[in-house]
Amino acid sequence: MGFRMANLAGQAVLLDGKDYWALGTDPMDALSRPRELRHRWARRGAPGGRAALTDLGPPVPAPRQVFGYGLNYMDHIEEIDRVDSMGRAVSEAPVVFTKFPACLVGPAAPVKLVGDRCDYECELVAVIGAEARNVDESGAWDRVAGLMIGQDISDRALQTAASPPQFSLGKSRESFGPVGPALVSVELVDDPDDLAISCQINGEMRQNSRTGLLMRPVAEMVAYLSSILTLQPGDLIFTGTPGGVGHARGLYLQPGDVIRSEIEGLGVMENTCAAPQHH
Amino acid sequence: MGFRMANLAGQAVLLDGKDYWALGTDPMDALSRPRELRHRWARRGAPGGRAALTDLGPPVPAPRQVFGYGLNYMDHIEEIDRVDSMGRAVSEAPVVFTKFPACLVGPAAPVKLVGDRCDYECELVAVIGAEARNVDESGAWDRVAGLMIGQDISDRALQTAASPPQFSLGKSRESFGPVGPALVSVELVDDPDDLAISCQINGEMRQNSRTGLLMRPVAEMVAYLSSILTLQPGDLIFTGTPGGVGHARGLYLQPGDVIRSEIEGLGVMENTCAAPQHH
Repeated sequence: MGFRMANLAGQAVLLDGKDYWALGTDPMDALSRPRELRHRWARRGAPGGRAALTDLGPPVPAPRQVFGYGLNYMDHIEEIDRVDSMGRAVSEAPVVFTKFPACLVGPAAPVKLVGDRCDYECELVAVIGAEARNVDESGAWDRVAGLMIGQDISDRALQTAASPPQFSLGKSRESFGPVGPALVSVELVDDPDDLAISCQINGEMRQNSRTGLLMRPVAEMVAYLSSILTLQPGDLIFTGTPGGVGHARGLYLQPGDVIRSEIEGLGVMENTCAAPQHH
Repeated sequence: MGFRMANLAGQAVLLDGKDYWALGTDPMDALSRPRELRHRWARRGAPGGRAALTDLGPPVPAPRQVFGYGLNYMDHIEEIDRVDSMGRAVSEAPVVFTKFPACLVGPAAPVKLVGDRCDYECELVAVIGAEARNVDESGAWDRVAGLMIGQDISDRALQTAASPPQFSLGKSRESFGPVGPALVSVELVDDPDDLAISCQINGEMRQNSRTGLLMRPVAEMVAYLSSILTLQPGDLIFTGTPGGVGHARGLYLQPGDVIRSEIEGLGVMENTCAAPQHH
């Protein structure tokens, strides 16, 4: 059982490797009928064609709400503590911002750099599949439709320019939200609470961790958010990034850099950085 | 010319005082066709019925993006400086957060208090009417469909619980985003850059200012946001609140309190506070 659903030129498809099967509807509609996705996946037969990574858009192109958890791996908290003078310790309450949905792009879309302090953050993204209000942790995974890879591209200058700093805008510039390649239903992942996660820049390993090290795991995040507001089908939760970001070493993204993001069982994204545009 | 569009039980209506005219579609669809709204307003004839404030939902129930500007009136910055030890001065960059869309409710919906530090913030809300990317200030008003009143209800405890503080969750609890009563097109407002704005609690005037005192006026906000990402029709911009919030005096909202919000030319909202629910 399960499914892998992707966005091929705005149309929902099942995706298995490069093979795809058209679903005859758009991704947001397909996501609202997970039973049908599972049914179609089980009897998918001969593929309808083959899709390249560059053909794919964001699997969930129009979420109503996108939540970003900051500072959710200890090694990332430590590396940020070393370079920033913000006096960050482990926050008692979760640090939650948004990536405004306009920033979402596909798994091979170019990342349009702005200024000289843009950075990568490879993250596990959970996609809500059913309305959730005041669910407890034991029921939280039932509300998750599936998982995908996300890049929480961040303009470190803009992220901290306001006083007090609000992270959302600096993480929402155009093209700063690559996601994909497919929404993978939870059943198709070996252990959704412990997946290898890594990020390479031009072939050099920069982040290499496991989602088992999330200080607040997915079920806790879903339960917490649902205690505050109603989670809706299609909502995304960017779960935070492990240590190894460029900011910690003063190494920012450069035009031409290739960001390769990988999570066990979820596939690979490859996004190339484009030079800043001047208006 | 112009229009006043409201949400009557999920259906779009034109609203003039208490008189309404059904538009035969939902508010998000109606908003996408402003020319038709103007045409129908001009020849609206005999009303279809009368609506009470309590019958109305949020005029824009499903925005893709909701932007909140913090600290945008000098007297509010000063009052917050006095009570908080956050060392806030005037921020060089705008302080922008989100109100997650699930919090949006109608102009007479109950505000469901949580804890004992919930506060009111009466605000002018601008509604985007046309896609906007890299517009300059002179073209910004053309992308605004209209204006409405908003309450940026805030849980001061949750708003600042994270380190560094991220405002979005504390301003997004269920029912914390009353908006309405109608989306009023810009032509129907005398001077969209200078409107009287006020908030009364149980008949006592607490906020009483003019939007002409916005440090970053609407056109500047639209231009700035559009320099970072693409604004989309239906996006909301909460423009910040003037001085007089309860937090500045240690006076928080209590069950039974009536929050009356008024902006010149946009009407009135009345939201009553409900006691905290215990789960």
